[in-house]
Amino acid sequence: MANESLTFTLGQIAEKIGGVVIGDPEIVIDSPATSKTQNSRGLAFAESDAYLREAEQSLAAAIIVPESVSASSKALIQHPNPRMAFGHVLHLFDRPISLDAGISPLASVSIGATIDTTVSIGPFAVICDGAQLGANVQVFPFAYIGPNCRIGSGSIVFPHAVLLQNVITGANCKIGPGAILGNSGFGYYWNGSEQVPIPQVGGVYLGDKVDIGALTAIDRATADFTIVQDGVKTDNLVQIAHNVNLGSHSVLASQVGIAGSTSIGARFVAGGQSGVSDHLEIAEGVSIGGRAAVLGSISEPGVYSGFPAIPMSKFRRNAAVAQDLHDLLKRVRSLEKKVAELESGQ
Amino acid sequence: MANESLTFTLGQIAEKIGGVVIGDPEIVIDSPATSKTQNSRGLAFAESDAYLREAEQSLAAAIIVPESVSASSKALIQHPNPRMAFGHVLHLFDRPISLDAGISPLASVSIGATIDTTVSIGPFAVICDGAQLGANVQVFPFAYIGPNCRIGSGSIVFPHAVLLQNVITGANCKIGPGAILGNSGFGYYWNGSEQVPIPQVGGVYLGDKVDIGALTAIDRATADFTIVQDGVKTDNLVQIAHNVNLGSHSVLASQVGIAGSTSIGARFVAGGQSGVSDHLEIAEGVSIGGRAAVLGSISEPGVYSGFPAIPMSKFRRNAAVAQDLHDLLKRVRSLEKKVAELESGQ
Amino acid sequence: MANESLTFTLGQIAEKIGGVVIGDPEIVIDSPATSKTQNSRGLAFAESDAYLREAEQSLAAAIIVPESVSASSKALIQHPNPRMAFGHVLHLFDRPISLDAGISPLASVSIGATIDTTVSIGPFAVICDGAQLGANVQVFPFAYIGPNCRIGSGSIVFPHAVLLQNVITGANCKIGPGAILGNSGFGYYWNGSEQVPIPQVGGVYLGDKVDIGALTAIDRATADFTIVQDGVKTDNLVQIAHNVNLGSHSVLASQVGIAGSTSIGARFVAGGQSGVSDHLEIAEGVSIGGRAAVLGSISEPGVYSGFPAIPMSKFRRNAAVAQDLHDLLKRVRSLEKKVAELESGQ
Repeated sequence: MANESLTFTLGQIAEKIGGVVIGDPEIVIDSPATSKTQNSRGLAFAESDAYLREAEQSLAAAIIVPESVSASSKALIQHPNPRMAFGHVLHLFDRPISLDAGISPLASVSIGATIDTTVSIGPFAVICDGAQLGANVQVFPFAYIGPNCRIGSGSIVFPHAVLLQNVITGANCKIGPGAILGNSGFGYYWNGSEQVPIPQVGGVYLGDKVDIGALTAIDRATADFTIVQDGVKTDNLVQIAHNVNLGSHSVLASQVGIAGSTSIGARFVAGGQSGVSDHLEIAEGVSIGGRAAVLGSISEPGVYSGFPAIPMSKFRRNAAVAQDLHDLLKRVRSLEKKVAELESGQ
Repeated sequence: MANESLTFTLGQIAEKIGGVVIGDPEIVIDSPATSKTQNSRGLAFAESDAYLREAEQSLAAAIIVPESVSASSKALIQHPNPRMAFGHVLHLFDRPISLDAGISPLASVSIGATIDTTVSIGPFAVICDGAQLGANVQVFPFAYIGPNCRIGSGSIVFPHAVLLQNVITGANCKIGPGAILGNSGFGYYWNGSEQVPIPQVGGVYLGDKVDIGALTAIDRATADFTIVQDGVKTDNLVQIAHNVNLGSHSVLASQVGIAGSTSIGARFVAGGQSGVSDHLEIAEGVSIGGRAAVLGSISEPGVYSGFPAIPMSKFRRNAAVAQDLHDLLKRVRSLEKKVAELESGQ
Repeated sequence: MANESLTFTLGQIAEKIGGVVIGDPEIVIDSPATSKTQNSRGLAFAESDAYLREAEQSLAAAIIVPESVSASSKALIQHPNPRMAFGHVLHLFDRPISLDAGISPLASVSIGATIDTTVSIGPFAVICDGAQLGANVQVFPFAYIGPNCRIGSGSIVFPHAVLLQNVITGANCKIGPGAILGNSGFGYYWNGSEQVPIPQVGGVYLGDKVDIGALTAIDRATADFTIVQDGVKTDNLVQIAHNVNLGSHSVLASQVGIAGSTSIGARFVAGGQSGVSDHLEIAEGVSIGGRAAVLGSISEPGVYSGFPAIPMSKFRRNAAVAQDLHDLLKRVRSLEKKVAELESGQ
């Protein structure tokens, strides 16, 4: 993405990332780029010959390469670790959206809210009575911070995020655009003629450095807290139901769902569209593949997939058979015929 | 969740729920709590010995127990039905988010809207020309009530909910935060060179006491109405497509999808991440398990699961075999070898 | 949906769509209707005898029928192509939500934004510094147009849609309510003690005539662009991850997910709740069924389904066997017993 006002020369970048330019150091770079880029001022990287060839055929202005590469049709930056160097370049060009300092006159801020003097609040944000915002918190437009919500220092609430009620975050969290935290948990009982809501009076607790994706829902607990521990990262459109306890440093890809009261150990990794049923216990160090459906508790670390989820190695072996299941049926039919002939032949 | 200003003594609670205190009635309770709570002013409940032991090991201040339990390391409330008593306690502590009475001066309300004098409208809500809001309706900040929308008395539109166009709700509905009702149904036809939109001119009709979860989408019909009947409850991130007719008192867990023009009978229950294809007829009294995919109409009440969905008992039996499918292949191979030997031995 | 102010007589409609009235041309029609309608001023259509009987039993005021039908209990419009005629009627009654011309005084528009004089901006919209809005663009309430976003002429940004950063759209796009474009792609690496965010500095690029459904997320690329090509249509609650390249005129039903860096050819069609894994290449002309999970690249056009996805014909044959998998196990057990007997009989 070209950031019109933000450019570096290749020489400047090489200096910042600790690399060596081969070619013209005055080439202007306006963005990091992929090895297929159509940006003629982009800087790509290539760890392998295949990616190098791809990048050479792209429009990239220059390529970060291992020290073993010294000649190319493009300008180069040699670096011992091109991937790490490219990460450094991404940081150079990173310009997160920002807010003006202070509280916008177009925000609606309750006088009953407790707001650190270093907080930034954008236009059309609503901060309700009883909310507490720590040092350097940023609240973007259209965010709603409801009663009894406490936001830890350094946290960012992106546009359209909602902390509805009783939501407590640690420090340095990011609540993605359109995420809804603290909605009532989904609890009803059937009284014989209708579904009656069970009051949900608990809250949502996020540890430190939790990143919540766009349009993700984390419901308040029936009692106590729905807990998302330190360092958890979720992608977009994720559901975390009431009274879930999600272990630290877990990573949930898009469209994952964790059903109510399930407790999950640290470093859980969930592929896209996977899900975990309610009231389960999942051990530390469990990963589940994309679309996996966990229907029972898991006590052993490892990788699982399938519906219902089983160990990944077994899932893969079974899936190979499942793809030719009709063939297996035919083989059984053939056997049945042969055995009938053998039996009649006796 | 501690509500700082809201506490009762154990004795006060026992009186309200009709129980008997064993221990100090002056203990201060600030919240209902789970049997694993870390809240030292929480009140848990225990129906079984296992939960009682768990609650005794928690930080709970007291526990609601059956009348058969009379001694514990914790203070107790004896009650004939601890679960029902706990539900009562949840109600005692329930403090739904609320709005100031009247119409916020920060709301944008069309003079062409018809608004009952008892309606509350928060800051930054938009009420368009032709909208009608019944008695005691509450419209929270960032809600959008579009043209030809009618909201029945006692209904609540939570922050960021959108009733885009032609949405009619019954009485006492709750439209969850970030829900989008009345977006155009997804209808296109291929004209040989591009997908051409088919105008969607119908509406969305909700019966009475319908609760819609956060970030749930219910599209307007091509013609007539997408219908969600009385008492339906949906969780978060649910999709209900155009011209669906969803039977009364149905319950849809998170991330469920119902495709277009499908008609579903009363008391449908759908587990998380399940789905129903388009243009199907589903009988009254059908339940589908988490992740089930219904690809054909269902005429018999009962519980179904799988992809495609089949009766649950059959799904379970098949799933047991599916988890060892590779083993089944090996058994067939072994049989093939043995039969070949038998045949050659003849 | 009755639009109180919008009615035509049957005769007026017949004239507009080129049909012939059988019955009273003065009948008042207030809406197109389904063949099951309860709207006594609705106009349905029937292509077949079955739909005609259904429509005759509905409350519809009149029915559009083929020229072969000339008698009915209802008034009729004869037309050579009832479906096409009904599409025409839908257009007659189509009244998309609209905005007042110009920029609402309740909008927050940066003086650093570039806004064509023909743009309409609703109340409580935010247009940030550096945004560019082309001719006739409409921005509805609660939309957020962030820095470096460029919106092509004729495009509509519906209520609550967010273009967070570096989002470029072509002409005549529709960004659905609650859609979030340009959120940071989901990229982290594990440094041995925590997940560290990889800066995402790219953008989102939409071609012309792209329609994005409600509550759909399209993330910005790590570098370069996440690309959604001309004419793509997505339904609600769809996820398109960073660096995806989605081919022109593709159609994605609700709750579909496309994982990062996957490249998909033109005219891709994805059924509801289906998904495609990351870093795959999908050929032009591929369709996948509802709930399909594509775990590997696809080089041949065609229809696929299953988890993992395989050609649809094979999926159907296998699914038939899978539904009786326990029966297959029993047949294998029976064979094992018979073969053992045969072996022992030798």
